[in-house]
Amino acid sequence: MEADCPLCRKLKDRQLGRDELVWEFPHSVALLGPWQFYHGYCVLFARTHARELQQLPLPERMAYLQEMIHLAAAIESAFQPRKLNYELLGNQVPHLHWHLFPRYSSDPDRLKPVWLAIDRAERDEGLRTHMEIGPSPRAETIERLRAELSRYHPKE
Amino acid sequence: MEADCPLCRKLKDRQLGRDELVWEFPHSVALLGPWQFYHGYCVLFARTHARELQQLPLPERMAYLQEMIHLAAAIESAFQPRKLNYELLGNQVPHLHWHLFPRYSSDPDRLKPVWLAIDRAERDEGLRTHMEIGPSPRAETIERLRAELSRYHPKE
Repeated sequence: MEADCPLCRKLKDRQLGRDELVWEFPHSVALLGPWQFYHGYCVLFARTHARELQQLPLPERMAYLQEMIHLAAAIESAFQPRKLNYELLGNQVPHLHWHLFPRYSSDPDRLKPVWLAIDRAERDEGLRTHMEIGPSPRAETIERLRAELSRYHPKE
Repeated sequence: MEADCPLCRKLKDRQLGRDELVWEFPHSVALLGPWQFYHGYCVLFARTHARELQQLPLPERMAYLQEMIHLAAAIESAFQPRKLNYELLGNQVPHLHWHLFPRYSSDPDRLKPVWLAIDRAERDEGLRTHMEIGPSPRAETIERLRAELSRYHPKE
């Protein structure tokens, strides 16, 4: 727990909205991400504050990667994307979090990383709204992911 | 091995240049990537052809992630970046490969994903050259990474 880390504060204060909490794993928490144009896009936060994977003790590091694999499997089962993109960046918020972006054949930019479209959306209100709204309500997307996750992992 | 996969062909025909082969792991091969503006940037190809992590058998999948961790540790030790970015995309070449991009404080775009700058470089010859050339010759960068990797992993 780092006092000035927005993710640590969010986890500590349980500021997890009903329209974002997907799953509580032992070592991480999965939230539904904002860009639901990538239907099922999730962010997986480590419970421990660490800037880099190397800073987690080895057993916790491998468990966190296992949880990433579970979440990825759930996204793939639920939404059958053309491809899944995994990204751990942390350039702005240096608390470990994986972005899991499912990519679809219907996306004209399917051959490119998501960040080019997201950069455009951040500078264009209409495009932002288009990319935030997915093909189903957020609560429904979360329910579909939970149904898949409950097959892999006992609910805590 | 997929006959029409450029990465499978590259691995099979041993088309690995002396200015790109960094390390041969049991389940993957590390190459020095083209954008050495991100000094130490590597790409880690799985030896098995698979589109998604889920398609590798579990022991091989976890071993591949362990090799990613080893390579990441070597990049961090050798070049001390501000942050490391891990990306597994495969939107264009669907054969598992991790991009490991070290990010530096001197990069004016350090808070952004690398793909915005790479997209500009791909459309501007001068910028491309600037981003391909790192602060030391490629062979020297490779030697520094190998020196770090030899501490973690016996050379095959």
